[in-house]
Amino acid sequence: MSNLPTSLPAGTKVVLGFSGGLDTSYCVKYLTDEKGYEVHSVIVNTGGFTSEELQQIEAHAYKLGVKSHTTVDAVKSYYDSIIRFLIYGNVLKNNTYPLSVSAERLSQALHIAEHTKKLGAKAVVHGSTGAGNDQVRFDMVFHIMIPGVEIITPIRDMKLSREEEISYLKSKGVEMNFEKAAYSINKGLWGTSVGGKETLHSKGMLPEEAWPTQVTKSAAEEIKLSFEKGELRKVNEQYFSHPAEAIQYLQTIAGPFGIGRDIHVGDTIIGIKGRVGFEAAAPMVILKAHHALEKHVLTKWQLSWKDQLAQFYGNWLHEGQILDPVMRDIEVFLQHSQEQVTGDVFIQLAPYRFTVIGIESPNDLMSSKFGKYGEMNSGWTGEDVRGFSKIFGNQTAIYHSIKADQS
Amino acid sequence: MSNLPTSLPAGTKVVLGFSGGLDTSYCVKYLTDEKGYEVHSVIVNTGGFTSEELQQIEAHAYKLGVKSHTTVDAVKSYYDSIIRFLIYGNVLKNNTYPLSVSAERLSQALHIAEHTKKLGAKAVVHGSTGAGNDQVRFDMVFHIMIPGVEIITPIRDMKLSREEEISYLKSKGVEMNFEKAAYSINKGLWGTSVGGKETLHSKGMLPEEAWPTQVTKSAAEEIKLSFEKGELRKVNEQYFSHPAEAIQYLQTIAGPFGIGRDIHVGDTIIGIKGRVGFEAAAPMVILKAHHALEKHVLTKWQLSWKDQLAQFYGNWLHEGQILDPVMRDIEVFLQHSQEQVTGDVFIQLAPYRFTVIGIESPNDLMSSKFGKYGEMNSGWTGEDVRGFSKIFGNQTAIYHSIKADQS
Amino acid sequence: MSNLPTSLPAGTKVVLGFSGGLDTSYCVKYLTDEKGYEVHSVIVNTGGFTSEELQQIEAHAYKLGVKSHTTVDAVKSYYDSIIRFLIYGNVLKNNTYPLSVSAERLSQALHIAEHTKKLGAKAVVHGSTGAGNDQVRFDMVFHIMIPGVEIITPIRDMKLSREEEISYLKSKGVEMNFEKAAYSINKGLWGTSVGGKETLHSKGMLPEEAWPTQVTKSAAEEIKLSFEKGELRKVNEQYFSHPAEAIQYLQTIAGPFGIGRDIHVGDTIIGIKGRVGFEAAAPMVILKAHHALEKHVLTKWQLSWKDQLAQFYGNWLHEGQILDPVMRDIEVFLQHSQEQVTGDVFIQLAPYRFTVIGIESPNDLMSSKFGKYGEMNSGWTGEDVRGFSKIFGNQTAIYHSIKADQS
Amino acid sequence: MSNLPTSLPAGTKVVLGFSGGLDTSYCVKYLTDEKGYEVHSVIVNTGGFTSEELQQIEAHAYKLGVKSHTTVDAVKSYYDSIIRFLIYGNVLKNNTYPLSVSAERLSQALHIAEHTKKLGAKAVVHGSTGAGNDQVRFDMVFHIMIPGVEIITPIRDMKLSREEEISYLKSKGVEMNFEKAAYSINKGLWGTSVGGKETLHSKGMLPEEAWPTQVTKSAAEEIKLSFEKGELRKVNEQYFSHPAEAIQYLQTIAGPFGIGRDIHVGDTIIGIKGRVGFEAAAPMVILKAHHALEKHVLTKWQLSWKDQLAQFYGNWLHEGQILDPVMRDIEVFLQHSQEQVTGDVFIQLAPYRFTVIGIESPNDLMSSKFGKYGEMNSGWTGEDVRGFSKIFGNQTAIYHSIKADQS
Repeated sequence: MSNLPTSLPAGTKVVLGFSGGLDTSYCVKYLTDEKGYEVHSVIVNTGGFTSEELQQIEAHAYKLGVKSHTTVDAVKSYYDSIIRFLIYGNVLKNNTYPLSVSAERLSQALHIAEHTKKLGAKAVVHGSTGAGNDQVRFDMVFHIMIPGVEIITPIRDMKLSREEEISYLKSKGVEMNFEKAAYSINKGLWGTSVGGKETLHSKGMLPEEAWPTQVTKSAAEEIKLSFEKGELRKVNEQYFSHPAEAIQYLQTIAGPFGIGRDIHVGDTIIGIKGRVGFEAAAPMVILKAHHALEKHVLTKWQLSWKDQLAQFYGNWLHEGQILDPVMRDIEVFLQHSQEQVTGDVFIQLAPYRFTVIGIESPNDLMSSKFGKYGEMNSGWTGEDVRGFSKIFGNQTAIYHSIKADQS
Repeated sequence: MSNLPTSLPAGTKVVLGFSGGLDTSYCVKYLTDEKGYEVHSVIVNTGGFTSEELQQIEAHAYKLGVKSHTTVDAVKSYYDSIIRFLIYGNVLKNNTYPLSVSAERLSQALHIAEHTKKLGAKAVVHGSTGAGNDQVRFDMVFHIMIPGVEIITPIRDMKLSREEEISYLKSKGVEMNFEKAAYSINKGLWGTSVGGKETLHSKGMLPEEAWPTQVTKSAAEEIKLSFEKGELRKVNEQYFSHPAEAIQYLQTIAGPFGIGRDIHVGDTIIGIKGRVGFEAAAPMVILKAHHALEKHVLTKWQLSWKDQLAQFYGNWLHEGQILDPVMRDIEVFLQHSQEQVTGDVFIQLAPYRFTVIGIESPNDLMSSKFGKYGEMNSGWTGEDVRGFSKIFGNQTAIYHSIKADQS
Repeated sequence: MSNLPTSLPAGTKVVLGFSGGLDTSYCVKYLTDEKGYEVHSVIVNTGGFTSEELQQIEAHAYKLGVKSHTTVDAVKSYYDSIIRFLIYGNVLKNNTYPLSVSAERLSQALHIAEHTKKLGAKAVVHGSTGAGNDQVRFDMVFHIMIPGVEIITPIRDMKLSREEEISYLKSKGVEMNFEKAAYSINKGLWGTSVGGKETLHSKGMLPEEAWPTQVTKSAAEEIKLSFEKGELRKVNEQYFSHPAEAIQYLQTIAGPFGIGRDIHVGDTIIGIKGRVGFEAAAPMVILKAHHALEKHVLTKWQLSWKDQLAQFYGNWLHEGQILDPVMRDIEVFLQHSQEQVTGDVFIQLAPYRFTVIGIESPNDLMSSKFGKYGEMNSGWTGEDVRGFSKIFGNQTAIYHSIKADQS
Repeated sequence: MSNLPTSLPAGTKVVLGFSGGLDTSYCVKYLTDEKGYEVHSVIVNTGGFTSEELQQIEAHAYKLGVKSHTTVDAVKSYYDSIIRFLIYGNVLKNNTYPLSVSAERLSQALHIAEHTKKLGAKAVVHGSTGAGNDQVRFDMVFHIMIPGVEIITPIRDMKLSREEEISYLKSKGVEMNFEKAAYSINKGLWGTSVGGKETLHSKGMLPEEAWPTQVTKSAAEEIKLSFEKGELRKVNEQYFSHPAEAIQYLQTIAGPFGIGRDIHVGDTIIGIKGRVGFEAAAPMVILKAHHALEKHVLTKWQLSWKDQLAQFYGNWLHEGQILDPVMRDIEVFLQHSQEQVTGDVFIQLAPYRFTVIGIESPNDLMSSKFGKYGEMNSGWTGEDVRGFSKIFGNQTAIYHSIKADQS
């Protein structure tokens, strides 16, 4: 255990991103009792907590000794500022992972920075260890949004083990659940991550009991999702005033099928490969439905450029770079590309899987008005295509003719 | 019905890409009887025909009056020249379709061009209509590979209907199955396409009976695929001297699960949207297994650039541009990127779906030697990451500071 | 000379894109006298014509027999809808050519289509031959904007030679300059193209006399260009209410230096390579000045993505695809990226060349406030960079360690 | 002045990248006298030093007290492993800077790492400050190539000022030129950088006297460069057994024209913007000549993909990431793309500028055999192009028709 490298005097006002877990509980106690800081805790709910849980966390914070505790309800702002663009872009990191945790952490970091600024605190505290992605995301957002505010990371800086933290908290008379869960769970609007045992190695699937949502539906079910300019507005004709609510409602329908479970292995910001399980029923269904609709209403090059930009967008977001202005430039592209992305998508849900059945849209470019694929039509002739083929292959024909001349 | 716009004299030697179906049967008869041409038919097997079928097709060709008939066994060359690169690149068009037919058509066109050159024929005939992608693929490959050889397309040029063809063939005493199948099927090494009724509209899934492979397995099954430098060499420890054989063997295992069924909607070369069903059990399992292995052994930017190049490669191939020299440049990139892609991938098969369970590879970058994600390690310190975060966000911090100064 | 393949009856109202040259003069006469059509000529000025020239062209049109003649002053709309985005994107095709003619042709095609729609004409006529890019640009814009309107191209369809056209016009008593210019010149707001003799081969520079603007300045001259959100608003502190006027004014300053002369060799839409000389003093100075300013005020990834999108934008525009909706998506990206691109750029002009001296901008990210390159600063420490280097190279270090273990 | 954070004992063998300048002279003396280390100096010549200079540097090293001094002649290996690919890719960072210093530093770091491994040293020393790009490049290459070897950076770690270094060296009786040059110069095969006064701000051009090469030629001169598979092999018909020699020879011809002078402003690895002057006559002439040749012999998509890959390659190289295996994948792409890049390029040199006059190549796709741009030809007809235009614009036509229906 090392010393905490900060020279801020006792009485300093600090803001702490608080989850109620072991690490951040330690931070409250340690900074209050050992450093004499005035700790203001804040929890940002991006869809993972119920009101009861939030109340328990608040009570726990006060018992630990915080000066104030604030709960930020960030579900809608989280959707508006991040998730929306992940849907527009059909973003799946490495074609697998909807960035459930990556996106959430940034929303939280931004709200914590704002809270710190509002309280005029001299330091901001996060409970990250020195081993993962989150430390980079918090550090960077704080450096950028609240430059000059000191960043304190007791668990990382003091290289604390779980046992050391527990022993300290017990010595202070803190009562809380000190048992280590078999799997570490992180839940939010855009999916739930599940880490532990099997995900620590390159091989192994999580056992049924590790998944937070149990599979209770077995009969196939057909649903209809209605998009307006790329946003989910209706599920089975039920309208939601905010798309975040439509996502949450869809989750109650698709979740019990065990849909959207997978393991992602990917590149962490710090260069090592990391593996994590996740379940994300609503996100996966929405992304595939949205993509199916886009394939009908966008042109070939719209699909192609959206893909390229969105893949970068997802990766750069994952790496914590949400404040790079290029992200705003990409967002206006993605939003503009959604102008025609309006229509209904029909999906069949079944245990552990789903199928896109088709779409209906006034903007469908597959409109039979222009002839059907594989059947003759009135818009052009075989002669037109003959001419097209000749010109379309012209340069390559010249290339091969010249190569043949050389040999 | 229009006239055939060709002025080649009777007796001209022509090569015809022959499938034994209605369109190409018509071509043989019409060109032999009405034009007096010497028709040499050729069929290129890319994995879709059994020996019995090939023998029946040969007999049918001779009965129709061809001067010669040639069967090209192209399965291995098809894999070596095209499929291999689609696997290296994890190519799925619009993230859905393994390019089953697109790839096959080009292999066939190249073999037919070669045969035409070998026979010194003055014209090459294909049975395409004026309504799809294949006409462009055949036209382009022929323009490029055998410039000066006339391309004759009776069905397209004479705007023939199915009924006109049948009536002509019957009048000539030809006996064959004239019944129209409910669904048009195209089978090959890299998947089977299924078109008809439901695929003609933007909505609707193919019924169970439309799929060529019936689902006969219901119990989950775990399999092991072994890759060497990106190529599938073993299935469940059984070694195959050529990867095409490994693919065919895997198909016998995974096919009866009904895995890899989907409907693709995409952009045809001629600009309209087309929808087609396909089943591709082995291709889908291989692509996902290969990708999982790559995520463990390649660096972040290798994964990123492979993706970008492979998406273009797939699209450009789909559009018939296989002879553009840029395709060779991309192929050397893709092949070189496979140097470390060696290892085993574990998959669980279940009816209509499969899950990648994990990988084992000596080249795994997730090696625990370098610390595990989420746990502290010896390679670097929290201080290192603190410094990293500061520098990594430096430019954006400067940007926001300057923006704040302006307002 | 072939027949014109149109079956429109005499008296049909047709709109003709008219330049006053040999080809379009032939079109008026032929369509009026031989076909009996009611020809309405329209000329779209994108900056290449003086009022005197436009009046002479109008008089010539009426003398040839048009029913009406319309002059569209398109300079500002041309800038607003196309040139603006070429500047935002620093677009130089193949890093050489500002797309002077490509951009202009599309602006003209769009105005001609609009005029055709307004007059309710049944056909639209353009004077293109079958050998260049322009035919594709006109054809495509007309197919898209005025579907159903017949496209008539007498020179292309009748395969007319220059001599045949002259002989016909002379036979009709038409008086005009029938002499062939040594070089064919096309002038517009965004540059002047020069084709002839030397450009027909892969080697050879145009002689001094071929360039329309003669070099009359020899003493170096320093100028100052002021940009607001990416647009040129002031030249040497002189403000212009529209950027197109600023461009034209800058041309009067930089043109006489012989700046911006070069030969471009590039890919035509129809697959062959084409070579063309051009002089574009103002465009080249503006593009380089704008880019210099961007290098100071945009982040690394803004510069990178702008480049990629803009190169595609330029190529796709060149190929006539201005109406693909992906172009609108890219335009909003480019425009949004210009938010901070405000400041002054200092340029030194000299005969045949110019140098960017530097910039001044309130948004300059090189602000000395954050430390100077190569000097220590207060924002971060050497230790931070040490940590950064370790993490930044972490994945590659793991990769090489594992490779070393294998060998 | 801080302490040097190393705990290696006296007698430790360390390797020092040595240039003979103030910083590395300090390192020798300090590490030898204060730490008691056995210092082995090494200088890697990438084309910037004459034999006389190298001998003087060696003598200086021994006088300072090194145990051994090694000179690595890296000019050819530098070309073979890096410069070659920058030429294949026409790499100019931000369309301006040939990466003169960036490339050189990596070649040096790789040779120093190799030397360290060979001598079995426990530490490697570089003289970088904490303010620039070079520290990251050295750190990263050392971390990756010689993991476990300690990296010592006295100037960065002890935060030494120039004055402190001089005062220490004088106190030790070291005699050398302590005067600060008005401009800091870095010379190598691929160009010379010039920093100082004017480059420290966003505005200002270097004065004539700051440039190392004085302009002594005034009469225009035409030269001929001959490439074989992308590499410069002959200058004015003089053959060189290694392309690095051709580059050096060309430099003697083009340098005295003052060609290739410019100021680059770009993104440093550590996030700030940096500005640096450079002169690079041979590199600029070669890059533009090579690109001109490529525009004649490569297809449109070869040019496009080469550009995208090469821009990333240049940026990633600039950021020190030369050991990422994706760089090897890109190199095989670039090399393969050069198969047809053989031919002569004609250039006119003049004071401060040059013009590409044209090319001659057996692989020229502009071959008149296939028709000339702007003239009719035998390969295809106007009807073919008419068909092409229709199909080429088909999807966009459908899009606009559907949009029109909506409104």
